[in-house]
Amino acid sequence: MNYNYASRMANLNGTATREIFKLLGNPEIISFAGGNPAIECLPTERVKEITADVTSSPSFARVLQYGLTAGFPELRNQLVEYVKSAGISDATVDNILVISGGQQGIDLALKTFINPGDVVLVENPTYLAFLQIANSYEAVCKGVNANDDGLDLEDLEAKIKKHNPKILYCVPTFSNPTGKTYTAENRKAIAELTAKYGVMVIEDDPYSKLRFKGEYVPSMKSMDTAGNVIFVSSFSKIVSPGNRTGVACATPEIIRKMEICKQGTDLHTPNLSQMITYEYLKRGYLEPDLEKAVKIYGDKKACMSNAIKNYMPEEFECTDPDGGLFIWGKFPKGIDVIKIFPEAIEKKVAYIQGSVFFAEPEGTENYIRLNYSYANAEQIETGIKRLGDLFKEKLAKL
Amino acid sequence: MNYNYASRMANLNGTATREIFKLLGNPEIISFAGGNPAIECLPTERVKEITADVTSSPSFARVLQYGLTAGFPELRNQLVEYVKSAGISDATVDNILVISGGQQGIDLALKTFINPGDVVLVENPTYLAFLQIANSYEAVCKGVNANDDGLDLEDLEAKIKKHNPKILYCVPTFSNPTGKTYTAENRKAIAELTAKYGVMVIEDDPYSKLRFKGEYVPSMKSMDTAGNVIFVSSFSKIVSPGNRTGVACATPEIIRKMEICKQGTDLHTPNLSQMITYEYLKRGYLEPDLEKAVKIYGDKKACMSNAIKNYMPEEFECTDPDGGLFIWGKFPKGIDVIKIFPEAIEKKVAYIQGSVFFAEPEGTENYIRLNYSYANAEQIETGIKRLGDLFKEKLAKL
Repeated sequence: MNYNYASRMANLNGTATREIFKLLGNPEIISFAGGNPAIECLPTERVKEITADVTSSPSFARVLQYGLTAGFPELRNQLVEYVKSAGISDATVDNILVISGGQQGIDLALKTFINPGDVVLVENPTYLAFLQIANSYEAVCKGVNANDDGLDLEDLEAKIKKHNPKILYCVPTFSNPTGKTYTAENRKAIAELTAKYGVMVIEDDPYSKLRFKGEYVPSMKSMDTAGNVIFVSSFSKIVSPGNRTGVACATPEIIRKMEICKQGTDLHTPNLSQMITYEYLKRGYLEPDLEKAVKIYGDKKACMSNAIKNYMPEEFECTDPDGGLFIWGKFPKGIDVIKIFPEAIEKKVAYIQGSVFFAEPEGTENYIRLNYSYANAEQIETGIKRLGDLFKEKLAKL
Repeated sequence: MNYNYASRMANLNGTATREIFKLLGNPEIISFAGGNPAIECLPTERVKEITADVTSSPSFARVLQYGLTAGFPELRNQLVEYVKSAGISDATVDNILVISGGQQGIDLALKTFINPGDVVLVENPTYLAFLQIANSYEAVCKGVNANDDGLDLEDLEAKIKKHNPKILYCVPTFSNPTGKTYTAENRKAIAELTAKYGVMVIEDDPYSKLRFKGEYVPSMKSMDTAGNVIFVSSFSKIVSPGNRTGVACATPEIIRKMEICKQGTDLHTPNLSQMITYEYLKRGYLEPDLEKAVKIYGDKKACMSNAIKNYMPEEFECTDPDGGLFIWGKFPKGIDVIKIFPEAIEKKVAYIQGSVFFAEPEGTENYIRLNYSYANAEQIETGIKRLGDLFKEKLAKL
């Protein structure tokens, strides 16, 4: 039978990271491609302890039964406290939705707001999975330029006027893929501009707790006076990605709409996942574990920056992030990292081509994203040397 | 700010069951409203044992890390065996997608196939959450009449010719809400008719293992020769609803499309949920636990049928299912169970109005769905007596 798919499927391919994830069954390949937390940061003992306690509790049957779509009430209460750490001080449980990972928060927000053809503004470059989700709603993504402070405010206003977008999506702290952070002033200006023009903002915040340098910057949501910012955070990078939990924080009206959308997608986030996150936060494990993780990621980032200095061609330019998981790099024009990728895999090292992070990818084949959280120091050294050798060879032939 | 929602939100309200679920914080209310498994059937000790083993395993870090979107390979292999119990003997892992509950299987199937305005055929009446999910894709649902054998085949063919539908959705075994089962002949005829006209079928199968009377009937998917049937099954009713796991089985091409759609919704089903289902199946716990559960549900159903005979007005007509979780009933015209619902809640007993299960609900306010799996025998007796008294009073005033 020839299947007659929905029109959304025409532009929907597997995301590059997910597809490369499949290739990495070979443990000999050093991967800078994904966004996996370090194995040594995953709280195996904590979760073992928590699940033993939860499964021994007399009320464990409740965990195996259906739960509320918005999430366990005690977890939602805990998340009211959690978002305070992002400067959101006035939330109540009605502002909180438990989500099955940050990905679902984005999906539910677009489901709530986007009709086919609606324009969504994104930073140039932006999180590739966002572009895929936007495609699934047949949104039209338009890129906004960025500078060292964050979004280019003139370009943002011009694009708002030109495209009348429904939503602006951004990752203001340790952006994926660039690792850059918007200043507090830039955030405030974005919050004001979008409110003025009635544009919704999805503030995606999976990385802000992973700061190894520089000063804390409050979330854009904490500067939201119009109710137009949807804050989405995830426990994937700071507790466990395999546990698939996160939090959305917005006005009660929006949270209610997103909850109704969630009824039809997964009914509710698995209860044991919710209990693990709840107990992890309640028992105060996040702070001490973050302290260790931030040290580990800071060291890994330094290791990669150093290896880049030592081995990559001098024409290679890259970011120097204060936190998060990624370094973003640029080769001279003429280097096509997509074409070179199979050779890298032959040399047993993987990266992600930067082009997949652009709403309009033409002419971006010289960009690359490198993840430093997953590989160990020796692998980072070896892998970057392999890449350095490969790209030096390619540059010599230009 | 006045929010400018997507057009899909206009017809999207919380499902009646989910909303009533919220009301039932009061433990004094006897609920026949939901579809919760019996507390005593939830495998608390099994899951305690499994999580202790999984969290003690040296490879536990893998469970906390990101997983593949299609699911753990060992679980997919196990599910190849599982679907054989529904008569699907030729599946390989490429036919299998791990899903976050049956709900997600429906959602991903519609995401893959449905454009706004596409027609979907459903049984009259059908699963209310399906209607909600269809609304979220702005599909137009049209009801097909049913008889004692299953779908009315003449009406099905007429509706296919009239509406040119993309999908037929049905729950052929112990249907929600009616509890009825399609015969093998009826299934075969549906598979052939839909294949002939190029209509996709979603065969939703959460209840077939809960048979306490009568003969096993193979799934419609096992009769699919054209590749047009998407089989969706759930472990919610037979292992744990709170664990949110299920399986979709279709051609590799469709499974791949649904996998890509899943990337953008929850990335993957939580790994611990997957491991619990995997170990539960692998350790052979399903068969013995089902044997006990089926006995319990058979007793509860008998208890409810008996109470209905003793207490409900004699004008009340209802089904006599061989399995599943529901009895479907009908009062004489003039009885509006929606209007009467608040009085039932005052008397501390809850049900679901039947109208929410109809694609075209006009004139269906005299139908009611009663769940017998959750309440205990004493509650069933007391609750049905309360309903009987209430409806006798209403009938007397007609």
